[in-house]
Amino acid sequence: MSASKKILLGESELPQNYYNIQADMPNPMLPPLNPGTMQPVKPEDLTAIFPMELIKQEVSKERYIEIPDEVRNIYKMYRPSPLYRAIEFEKLLDTPAKIYYKYEGVSPAGSHKPNTAIAQAFYNKMEGVKGLTTETGAGQWGSALSFACKQFDLKCEVYMVRISYDQKPYRKVMMNTWGAEVIASPSNRTNSGRKILEQDPNSPGSLGIAISEAVEKAATTEGVNYALGSVLNHVLLHQTVIGQEAIKQLEMTGDFPDIIIAPFGGGSNFAGITFPFLRYNFQEGKNVRCIAVEPASCPKLTKGEFRYDFGDTMGFTPLIPMYTLGHTFVPPSIHAGGLRYHGAGAIVSQLLKDKLIEASAVQQLECFEAGIKFAQTEGIIVAPETTHAIAQVIREAEKAKIEGKQKTILFNLSGHGYFDMSAYQDYFAGKLQDHELTNEQLYSALKELKTPLAV
Amino acid sequence: MSASKKILLGESELPQNYYNIQADMPNPMLPPLNPGTMQPVKPEDLTAIFPMELIKQEVSKERYIEIPDEVRNIYKMYRPSPLYRAIEFEKLLDTPAKIYYKYEGVSPAGSHKPNTAIAQAFYNKMEGVKGLTTETGAGQWGSALSFACKQFDLKCEVYMVRISYDQKPYRKVMMNTWGAEVIASPSNRTNSGRKILEQDPNSPGSLGIAISEAVEKAATTEGVNYALGSVLNHVLLHQTVIGQEAIKQLEMTGDFPDIIIAPFGGGSNFAGITFPFLRYNFQEGKNVRCIAVEPASCPKLTKGEFRYDFGDTMGFTPLIPMYTLGHTFVPPSIHAGGLRYHGAGAIVSQLLKDKLIEASAVQQLECFEAGIKFAQTEGIIVAPETTHAIAQVIREAEKAKIEGKQKTILFNLSGHGYFDMSAYQDYFAGKLQDHELTNEQLYSALKELKTPLAV
Repeated sequence: MSASKKILLGESELPQNYYNIQADMPNPMLPPLNPGTMQPVKPEDLTAIFPMELIKQEVSKERYIEIPDEVRNIYKMYRPSPLYRAIEFEKLLDTPAKIYYKYEGVSPAGSHKPNTAIAQAFYNKMEGVKGLTTETGAGQWGSALSFACKQFDLKCEVYMVRISYDQKPYRKVMMNTWGAEVIASPSNRTNSGRKILEQDPNSPGSLGIAISEAVEKAATTEGVNYALGSVLNHVLLHQTVIGQEAIKQLEMTGDFPDIIIAPFGGGSNFAGITFPFLRYNFQEGKNVRCIAVEPASCPKLTKGEFRYDFGDTMGFTPLIPMYTLGHTFVPPSIHAGGLRYHGAGAIVSQLLKDKLIEASAVQQLECFEAGIKFAQTEGIIVAPETTHAIAQVIREAEKAKIEGKQKTILFNLSGHGYFDMSAYQDYFAGKLQDHELTNEQLYSALKELKTPLAV
Repeated sequence: MSASKKILLGESELPQNYYNIQADMPNPMLPPLNPGTMQPVKPEDLTAIFPMELIKQEVSKERYIEIPDEVRNIYKMYRPSPLYRAIEFEKLLDTPAKIYYKYEGVSPAGSHKPNTAIAQAFYNKMEGVKGLTTETGAGQWGSALSFACKQFDLKCEVYMVRISYDQKPYRKVMMNTWGAEVIASPSNRTNSGRKILEQDPNSPGSLGIAISEAVEKAATTEGVNYALGSVLNHVLLHQTVIGQEAIKQLEMTGDFPDIIIAPFGGGSNFAGITFPFLRYNFQEGKNVRCIAVEPASCPKLTKGEFRYDFGDTMGFTPLIPMYTLGHTFVPPSIHAGGLRYHGAGAIVSQLLKDKLIEASAVQQLECFEAGIKFAQTEGIIVAPETTHAIAQVIREAEKAKIEGKQKTILFNLSGHGYFDMSAYQDYFAGKLQDHELTNEQLYSALKELKTPLAV
C-alpha cells in the first residue's frame, strides 16, 4: 500500500481550549478607538450588539480560553477536520516539498466559518439573547451563522447584498433550509436601508450597507445581537481549533511545517491555522514562515497603510488599527468575494508590522489555474478564496525544487467551491481577467481618510 | 462530554475485497438474454463496450473479489467514509431507535458514485482502453466518472441530457474541471443523436437517448469503452465497500442494525450498503430488514412487474430480468432525478422476488420535509434522492416509538445536496407536488412490452 493520504483524529482529540495569541505576541495590538472620543473602546461601548463573554474575549490576555462543552458537542458534527497529505499534487508539481492541507470544507456550511459561528451563537444564547443579525455577501458567513443559530434555537436574520441575493440564490436557500430569514439589502427594515432606497430604489447593495443594516437592527432591537464573521479578535480566537488540530495531526506524521499558507480576507482562517504554530516561534525558537495570501486586486497587506480605520464602509464601527486601503475602497469584482475586504484584523496587522508573518498578493488567473491543478490531482474543487493559498503553495513548491530543499508546507483548505461553480465556468469561458490597479485607484480611499496613523 | 457522533476508520481498514452476493444469494438471478437470439448473453456480446475483467465480474460466483491497490489508493482520497450516529435527529424524533448513517457525500463528486467509477476506470485502463463514454442526467454519475478518468489519465466523454445541460450548468462545470468533455444530447456526434435531431432540432433529450449515444460512440470507436453507473452486477459489486465499512464501524459501537434503509434508483447505493449485511442473514441466521425506498412517482419495486426488459429506453441493451414499469415509461418530473429509472438491477430484483428485501414508495413532499428536519438537526443538506431514505427512517423511528422498541436503524446518506439547492428552493416556494399515478399511467408502457416474464 502507498503512503497515508488522510491523517484523522478522534473526537476525543478535539481541542479543549481556544488559543489566545494576545498572551504571547511580542508587541500587543493597539487599542481600538471610539471614533467619538478618540479614546480606547470600553466594554460598555459594545454591549448593545455583543454579549459580555465575547467582549471579554476581545481583550483577554489569557493564553487558553476553555471551549464550552456545548460548543464542542456541535463541533463534533465535523471536527476534528481531516489533515491530508497532497501526494498526487506533489507528484504533479514534481517538488521535493511535502504538502499538507487542513480541510475545513467538511463543515455543514462548507468552510471554516462555523468554527466561530457556533461559539458566537452559544455565548449569545447563554446571555439570554433571542436572535442574531448579520450581513453576508455571497453567503458563506450567512450560511454558517444560520446553521449555528439553528443548533441553539436562536432566530437568525441575514442581510444579504441584493445583487448576490438575486444572482446567487443557492446560498440563500441553504440559509432558509437551516431556518434563517434572508433579507435582500438594502431593505425597508432599517433606517440605513430606507435611506439608501430613497436615493436609489434599485440599489444593488454592498457589504458595507448590509453591515449597517444588521448592526442597526441589533442595536435597536431588544434581545437581538449582531455577529461578525472575521476581523475581530474573538472571531480569530475561535478559529484556532484549526491550527491546534493540525499540530497534533502533523505530530502523527513526524513532520513540522516550514511554511504555512492561508488565504486572507479579514484574517480569520489565516489566524486559525497559523496562531497555534506562531506560539512555537514566540516561545520555542521555531521559525515557521506564515504567509497570508491576498488578491492583487485588494492588496491591503502588501500595499495598504497601517493606520486606524473603520471596519465598515459607512463608518459605524470603532476605529481599528489595521492594514487598510481605506474603508470606502471598492475592490474590483473578483470571484473570491470573501477576500474583497478593505482591511485586516488588528492582531494580524500588528504581527505583519512586526514582521512576524509575511504577506503575498496573487492575481486571479494564477489562482484559478492553481485550483484546477489541485482539483485534477486531489479531487477537491476548492472555493475561489482558497485558490489563493494554492497558488502560493505552487510558488513555494517550485522554489523548493529549484533550491533542492525538502520543505514541509501546510495550507488551509478553507472551503469547498461547490457553491462557486459559476466562477470556474467564467474561468473556462475566458471571461476572467487580472486587475492591475493604478496607485491612484489604490490610494484614493486612503487619501480621504482623516483617522490617525497606527504607530 | 456527550456520546460520539462520528465513527471513523483509518485507511488501513479500507476493505481489501468487494463482496459478491452472487456467491450467497439463495436463488441465483436469471440470466440476461440477447434480444436477438433470446439466449443468455455471452461474454463476447459485451466486449465491444466493456473490458473483460468487468464482464467476468458480471457473472462471477466468487464470494470475494480483490480490490486492486491502484483503486484502493484513489479510494483513500475519501474512504473509509464516516459513519455518524444521528444523535440530534433522534432527539427531534423523540424515538427510542438508534439511528446511524453512512455518509457517502464526502467523495469529491459528492456521492457514492465514485466507488464504481474509479474501479471501472481502472479496469478499462488496464486493458489498454484510452477513453470512456457515458451518459448523465443531472450530472451525479457524469461527474463521478469524470473524476475517476482524470485519476487514470483516460479521456472522458459525457453525453448530458440537453435540458439539464442548459438548466443545470454547474455539474457540467464540475466535469470540465476534472477534464471531461461534456456534450449536450442529442448531439451530431452519433447516428442516434442525428436521427433525433432530424425529427426535432430542439429536442430536450432524455436519459434513454443519451445512453444510446454513449453506447454507440463506444461501440464504434477504437479504444473507447462505455461505463454505466448503476443496475449492472459489477456496479453493485463495487459499491459493497460501503456496507463492509459500516459493519466494522458498527462493531466499534457494539450495535448491529435491525433495519437498513437506502434510496433506490437502479440499485447501486442500496446494494452497496445492504449486501454485506445480507450475508449475515443468509449465513449466520441474522434477520436484518433491508428496505429500498423509491419515489411513489416511479414505483417499479412496489408496483412494477418482474419480467425481462431492456435497460435503456431505445432497447439497445440485453434483456435484463428486473422489476420494471416498462423501458418506455416516463416518470413524472421530480427532483430526485437519480431515482427516475424504469427498472431495478437483476440481483436486487431477484432478492425482492424472494422476499429477502423489502421495498417502500414515498411521495416527494414527505421526502423534502424529512430532508429539512435532518438538515436542521444533523447539519447536512442531503440530495433529493437521499431524502427518500430519511423519510422512511422517520416512519420506522415513529413505529419504534409506538412499539416502545429500541431498534437500530442504519441508512445510506448517499450524497449531499449542494448541487440540488434549486430543488429545496422549489419546495420552499410551494412549487412541488406529489404525484398520484393512475394504473393506466403506470402500466401503459408495460402493456406494450412483448418480452417474456421473468419466472
